[in-house]
Amino acid sequence: MAPPSDAPAQPAGDASDNTNDHLVQSDNPEHPANLIPSLCAKFWTLGWVTGTGGGASIRDDDLVYIAPSGVQKELMKPADIYVLSLAAQAKSLDRRSRMYLRSPARYKPSQCTPLFLAAFTKRNASCCIHTHSHWAVLVTLILETQGPGNDREFRINNIEQIKGFGRGFDRPGNLGYHDTLRIPVIENTAHEEDLTEFLEEAMERYPDAYAVLVRRHGVYVWGETVHKAKTQCESLDYLFQLAVEMKRLDLPWITKIEPVKPTRA
Amino acid sequence: MAPPSDAPAQPAGDASDNTNDHLVQSDNPEHPANLIPSLCAKFWTLGWVTGTGGGASIRDDDLVYIAPSGVQKELMKPADIYVLSLAAQAKSLDRRSRMYLRSPARYKPSQCTPLFLAAFTKRNASCCIHTHSHWAVLVTLILETQGPGNDREFRINNIEQIKGFGRGFDRPGNLGYHDTLRIPVIENTAHEEDLTEFLEEAMERYPDAYAVLVRRHGVYVWGETVHKAKTQCESLDYLFQLAVEMKRLDLPWITKIEPVKPTRA
Amino acid sequence: MAPPSDAPAQPAGDASDNTNDHLVQSDNPEHPANLIPSLCAKFWTLGWVTGTGGGASIRDDDLVYIAPSGVQKELMKPADIYVLSLAAQAKSLDRRSRMYLRSPARYKPSQCTPLFLAAFTKRNASCCIHTHSHWAVLVTLILETQGPGNDREFRINNIEQIKGFGRGFDRPGNLGYHDTLRIPVIENTAHEEDLTEFLEEAMERYPDAYAVLVRRHGVYVWGETVHKAKTQCESLDYLFQLAVEMKRLDLPWITKIEPVKPTRA
Amino acid sequence: MAPPSDAPAQPAGDASDNTNDHLVQSDNPEHPANLIPSLCAKFWTLGWVTGTGGGASIRDDDLVYIAPSGVQKELMKPADIYVLSLAAQAKSLDRRSRMYLRSPARYKPSQCTPLFLAAFTKRNASCCIHTHSHWAVLVTLILETQGPGNDREFRINNIEQIKGFGRGFDRPGNLGYHDTLRIPVIENTAHEEDLTEFLEEAMERYPDAYAVLVRRHGVYVWGETVHKAKTQCESLDYLFQLAVEMKRLDLPWITKIEPVKPTRA
Repeated sequence: MAPPSDAPAQPAGDASDNTNDHLVQSDNPEHPANLIPSLCAKFWTLGWVTGTGGGASIRDDDLVYIAPSGVQKELMKPADIYVLSLAAQAKSLDRRSRMYLRSPARYKPSQCTPLFLAAFTKRNASCCIHTHSHWAVLVTLILETQGPGNDREFRINNIEQIKGFGRGFDRPGNLGYHDTLRIPVIENTAHEEDLTEFLEEAMERYPDAYAVLVRRHGVYVWGETVHKAKTQCESLDYLFQLAVEMKRLDLPWITKIEPVKPTRA
Repeated sequence: MAPPSDAPAQPAGDASDNTNDHLVQSDNPEHPANLIPSLCAKFWTLGWVTGTGGGASIRDDDLVYIAPSGVQKELMKPADIYVLSLAAQAKSLDRRSRMYLRSPARYKPSQCTPLFLAAFTKRNASCCIHTHSHWAVLVTLILETQGPGNDREFRINNIEQIKGFGRGFDRPGNLGYHDTLRIPVIENTAHEEDLTEFLEEAMERYPDAYAVLVRRHGVYVWGETVHKAKTQCESLDYLFQLAVEMKRLDLPWITKIEPVKPTRA
Repeated sequence: MAPPSDAPAQPAGDASDNTNDHLVQSDNPEHPANLIPSLCAKFWTLGWVTGTGGGASIRDDDLVYIAPSGVQKELMKPADIYVLSLAAQAKSLDRRSRMYLRSPARYKPSQCTPLFLAAFTKRNASCCIHTHSHWAVLVTLILETQGPGNDREFRINNIEQIKGFGRGFDRPGNLGYHDTLRIPVIENTAHEEDLTEFLEEAMERYPDAYAVLVRRHGVYVWGETVHKAKTQCESLDYLFQLAVEMKRLDLPWITKIEPVKPTRA
Repeated sequence: MAPPSDAPAQPAGDASDNTNDHLVQSDNPEHPANLIPSLCAKFWTLGWVTGTGGGASIRDDDLVYIAPSGVQKELMKPADIYVLSLAAQAKSLDRRSRMYLRSPARYKPSQCTPLFLAAFTKRNASCCIHTHSHWAVLVTLILETQGPGNDREFRINNIEQIKGFGRGFDRPGNLGYHDTLRIPVIENTAHEEDLTEFLEEAMERYPDAYAVLVRRHGVYVWGETVHKAKTQCESLDYLFQLAVEMKRLDLPWITKIEPVKPTRA
């Protein structure tokens, strides 16, 4: 929607509320500055972003829009949104210094920012969602009980909802019912931005995955479009919840089922 | 509401967004093109159609209105609705070719379409709903643990909510409290449209059933009216959830209870 | 609000939609004909009245307003409401014949009607609510496992929420934290109206109770005001859900706890 | 927002509805008299304040605004709000006599009032929330099973959501992922106001805690701002629910996890 802005980028902390307000003002409900608040309000009702946990970000060309840290997600307004320029960020010599075109003074920048940027730059994603869903956390806890080495991946197969996931960024179409969905699990770190290297390593090991679980923390899910990120995040949370229910009933996540052949042409 | 349309039917893929828009434009909230989006938005809040799974269809005389594939169910608009003519479909020599009167270009047709058509043509239904409800999936998984041969049917009796179901298409009145509700379970297939023959076989074996469970996938529920399909879908999901809770507490789904006789006239 | 109506009472079935519409038309949101639909819509979101199960009734002096049978509870309108005259009902020689002042043609009268009337006439209630809450049903199922004779009453003590219940119709104030809440359980009958004698017997045996559980069916809750019926219904469902969760964790519903004495005056 | 009022303070019971209405009338949705009803309506949807249980209070300088007792929390109006003056309360010789500037005649004052005041005066809180959340109650019940002496504190560590809590009133910043969150548990008393001394003792023993659990009753949570109280209450309920789910799966609340060191600068 918007080309790289000529407005000067500034490190967070220097910006007042009046900087580049035009970047977050639009009558279009699909504009990222309007969409992020409406998505976060929806995520709050789902229990994904309680107590200010979690977040979301949308990339539109060079501009990255990010929900701030510490805001009540169901009360977010377009004026709360941070805006970053990918090009300006790439020019910055200091990797940890964020070049914000817009940095609302009343909040802090999201600590998920480097993780969102990893999804945008390494996976060509347009949207990245971070949730603290109970189901995601419980799945990582259940995996812990399967012993070291077995807890680095969530695997499930033979569930129809698996078809909600793309096969991968360079691969057309979606996964099939019989396919195994694999989501890598990384360890949580004391500071959220320190997750970045581990998230990027997991992306390397799982080039076809659209999500990474963070132990005892939650999940990051992305997609080439907002639609894809949001629907994959829903399908994944559905599968996490199903997996926990299956575990309670001692039902295995991986099964061997012979495909059924239709008899008609 | 509408007689068979004289507008030419076209295979999906040839239609642009401007074809037959009048078929989905109405001020009446009960018009199928308005009712399907409002029902799907409600189903989304119930967790039945997350991540674009599930769907719904309404038949009005010759016209069949279908929610598209891949849309976020809580965001559906009347303009997203596909419209099919049963008469034109019957004339088509190619069984798999759908004759759409209206085929929005931005989406794909629902893969549930042949299953919806089976309910409309074989059971005289006016509405068919497909959900990916967790409870439906878990019931099929619990049935798997009861061994091959025992997993082809969900049975429950002696629960008041059973009265929410009709006795069958040719039979007046509803099931009673002591009656056994039987829902057939069919295997899931890699491609949704391949379920059709198995759904139709299940309809033959269970002429009085209003629903078919699909293992590890979800459920299809229909009714002679939208009201009946929707309320039976609710009652069934209620019973699926109750069944899972009963299983967790080791309570049997089938019991023998002597009917209580009132002493007063 | 309204004195006994002079409008002629008629048995259900003879009334058209135009009879006594004024009885259900009001701008006051607290008018029973407006309050019943708004309460039922709320109850639908709580899972208490899914698939047309459950219902509600409000008595205002001589007039009794009742939600019809078979309506989707979240879609109810004032025009759907049945109205009965208690005085006319008392004059009727046929106990089972209902004398409706208003009887909408498109629905059937609620089968809960005699049970609602029992609460109004025997307990001086102004409002009676009937739910099919999962938690109520599960509590009756758990009680079954405690053997015949032990399954006729739900008992719980030492939970703060117990203070939500009145001590009884002739007794002022509410139950205390350490008090034991006792709710009788009656057997379900094939036809709902046949429950009436058993509900009335339970009311006799438990003169201080505001509710009766119906095995494998749900619960009836009443109160001297709408506020009391609704809040007691909420508190009871809260306790039913807590009881099921406690059972899952093997925590007893009845405990012995020494009251704590404050040391300050 | 408002300086100490010159309006005469009166004991509860003497005030009519017309006293000091201006204290609760404002167009600003953030005014305590507007914010308490909107927060309580939100809490009702979360299951925290069912059946009139629970409550909330906001302090603005000298004025304390309190939700009344016995109101349906999702229906609360600004006109229902009680207002107290801390200065007038301090002058009162009778500790139990409340000096209300505004005391709506149709309700009773909240029995949580002395507990709210304890949070305001001893912890400099601006907002205190009291919930009857199932998860809070279940956590106290699970702790009971760990034997006397082990049931006086809820402890959990190594969960990301712990970062939602401040380190304490005199300590900047929030808890970390690896930190142990400790919430004291006090015994419930027959009368809610008798909890006050035990709540104050718990505050003394746990100077850094922002909450106190009350066995078989619920939880009190406070914060220096409404934002902090509300988000900490959410994070705590999240952790309570997670703890119950973990218990069901036999997962320990306290674990030993070595912090992960990032390898990049």
